[in-house]
Amino acid sequence: MPDARLQIDGDRLWHSLMALAAIGATPKGGVARLALTDLDRAGRDWVVAQAREAGLSVVVDRIGNIFMRRAGRDANLPPVMTGSHIDTQPTGGKFDGNYGVLAGLEVIRTLNEQAISTEAPLEVVVWTNEEGSRFVPVMMGSGVFCGAFGLDHAYAARDTDGRSVGDELRRIGYLGSRAPGDHPVGCYFEAHIEQGPVLEEAATVIGAVDGALGTRWYDCTVSGTEAHAGSTPMTSRRDALAVATRVMQEVVALGNRHAPHGRGTVGYVDVFPNSRNVIPGRVRFSIDLRNASAALLDAMVGEMRAFVDRLQSESGLAIDVEEVAQYAPCPFEPGCVALVERTAARLGYRHMRVTSGAGHDAIHLARVAPTAMIFVPCKGGISHNEIEDADPAHLQAGANVLLHCMLEKAGIAR
Amino acid sequence: MPDARLQIDGDRLWHSLMALAAIGATPKGGVARLALTDLDRAGRDWVVAQAREAGLSVVVDRIGNIFMRRAGRDANLPPVMTGSHIDTQPTGGKFDGNYGVLAGLEVIRTLNEQAISTEAPLEVVVWTNEEGSRFVPVMMGSGVFCGAFGLDHAYAARDTDGRSVGDELRRIGYLGSRAPGDHPVGCYFEAHIEQGPVLEEAATVIGAVDGALGTRWYDCTVSGTEAHAGSTPMTSRRDALAVATRVMQEVVALGNRHAPHGRGTVGYVDVFPNSRNVIPGRVRFSIDLRNASAALLDAMVGEMRAFVDRLQSESGLAIDVEEVAQYAPCPFEPGCVALVERTAARLGYRHMRVTSGAGHDAIHLARVAPTAMIFVPCKGGISHNEIEDADPAHLQAGANVLLHCMLEKAGIAR
Repeated sequence: MPDARLQIDGDRLWHSLMALAAIGATPKGGVARLALTDLDRAGRDWVVAQAREAGLSVVVDRIGNIFMRRAGRDANLPPVMTGSHIDTQPTGGKFDGNYGVLAGLEVIRTLNEQAISTEAPLEVVVWTNEEGSRFVPVMMGSGVFCGAFGLDHAYAARDTDGRSVGDELRRIGYLGSRAPGDHPVGCYFEAHIEQGPVLEEAATVIGAVDGALGTRWYDCTVSGTEAHAGSTPMTSRRDALAVATRVMQEVVALGNRHAPHGRGTVGYVDVFPNSRNVIPGRVRFSIDLRNASAALLDAMVGEMRAFVDRLQSESGLAIDVEEVAQYAPCPFEPGCVALVERTAARLGYRHMRVTSGAGHDAIHLARVAPTAMIFVPCKGGISHNEIEDADPAHLQAGANVLLHCMLEKAGIAR
Repeated sequence: MPDARLQIDGDRLWHSLMALAAIGATPKGGVARLALTDLDRAGRDWVVAQAREAGLSVVVDRIGNIFMRRAGRDANLPPVMTGSHIDTQPTGGKFDGNYGVLAGLEVIRTLNEQAISTEAPLEVVVWTNEEGSRFVPVMMGSGVFCGAFGLDHAYAARDTDGRSVGDELRRIGYLGSRAPGDHPVGCYFEAHIEQGPVLEEAATVIGAVDGALGTRWYDCTVSGTEAHAGSTPMTSRRDALAVATRVMQEVVALGNRHAPHGRGTVGYVDVFPNSRNVIPGRVRFSIDLRNASAALLDAMVGEMRAFVDRLQSESGLAIDVEEVAQYAPCPFEPGCVALVERTAARLGYRHMRVTSGAGHDAIHLARVAPTAMIFVPCKGGISHNEIEDADPAHLQAGANVLLHCMLEKAGIAR
């Protein structure tokens, strides 16, 4: 077991984060570096140059994932892998994704400096288009790598200007030749800011992420009759919004009833005709339900549908609920999760188990390799926002945990 | 008292409605004839030609109101006035407004045919820009005539292309020279489709309108914090929509609690950032409260504010409620209302007292003269819609009541 005094260089990690954040920097202090744009190319080029300087070999696959490898003593062992993404939201921050990639590079630099070799190879990966802001589906590169969907499906995705993933990969010079998923992965760790308030509220530095919540997405449409707000008595109304708001309340109540992991959110609302003195004739809105297991999700959905059925009979208005998407809950590998926890404890960091409510490349990796994630707090839990911020000491702590987890799994070559 | 057998010509009234509806007819069977457009000019020209053919003298005032007068035996008596408007909503119908003007013309034609003269003069008026779709304020011509606001204020109103009421009146040739409001009005009756479902639901032909509801308009803004729908536990949320929907429910409940005249409507909703997987950080919506007296409105507003105060403390989210507009309740003159009722009874029509929930030129006229309105049903209560429809027999009945009310007030010259 490597000495707990072995630490990454927190300043160097911070400066690399600031250097990458300069590419696509926004006036408000954030980063806008959308997948497969010229800025994404510039970011990739910068990361690849850093990797080469650190002595890593670089291979790009056909969906543009960048594999930066440090050889192990035993070339036959599958690599211990880490990584994340460097594409951002249109008004993104400096840390989401970028932290996972640069923490991986910092691990490599630390091992180089200390002249520590490992039995198994180490790989730091940049996954293509995790954010999905420009091209759908999200988590595209890791999804193709892990067989969640095919290369053709990913290539065919187009942005709002009609440009395809295939064309843009070629244009920016990141259409590699390796077949995605052609090499086995020993295990996968991903360091990431939490993007939520749990760690900060608990004054905790390290989240040992035991999995990701499953999600069910629905579109709900309530159909009433638009009518004059003055000349239509209350008893003659078929007010679509009056019925829709009851469903919206129930969605939130569902999340509350299914604590601790239940989530119920209405994020999108469209009212027709949306005029001050017209009773709404139609309301469409989104329903986002999350929980930690399929059984719990099924229970939430069952309660939601029963509520809607009752309300439909009671109100006489049609309420249509259509499923839009499903993302299954994803438990991470217990051994890897326990290793994160044990490592945090050994290094003396306050830690706790958490479950990710957001999507991450690690969720795809969990299909093909033992996987866990390492969360660190972000300020106010705010992410996908230009004011996204994190404490350098927390980022350093997360990278230290990553370093020791990778060393433990790869084994120090004596 | 004129013989109850004296009747207007229902077919002639219907054909005049269809002829005017041809000017600005839409493919879906409605009418789009916005105030002070070329189509409005064509409609005005057609109405004026009909009036001249019926022997009426025509005067236009400085806000474009058209006064079409049939002389009485005593030129010193103020006129018994009727009228309405011929401008429409962008997707308007054939009857809203047009019926009131053409019912007035039909009354004149009937008296001409029967060679009946009156003591007082009769006037049929086309009021400028009642709808307010192109220029605000609504009910503009009658508002200026009755002193609700000044000519300069009306002239300065501009459409979304920047064209002013003053310029457009001149352009279409309806900038008259008479000073608005320069002549007294003996009394005013306005026939109109109900634009609501009450008469139809009660299988009643004539509504004796006893006044108009008052209205209070508010903009409500709930400010929370936008956050990730997955990574933010329910207990850490400041969900603006979850709070806003409670206010929206209360607005409807207020209308229900204050039966029979209370109305509570949320017609407009704006959610920010309005994204499926983001907890809403801000929700703005409209509140429309109506009732028959200022005291009842005050009570509704008091309950609304108390609810908002409680919810604000309970939720910790800021809820801002800003008054946007007030329209005072307008009781019509009891004698005129009773005359409508009595006349309907005498002519054998099913009738009931109703209160208008919508705005009408008559509300302004009630400031300067004894006023009442005559409502007839419209199909399904639907108005401001291209499918607006009305039963010819009901339109005929309303015009008959108008005829006899005007004769009663003007007096038959022997």
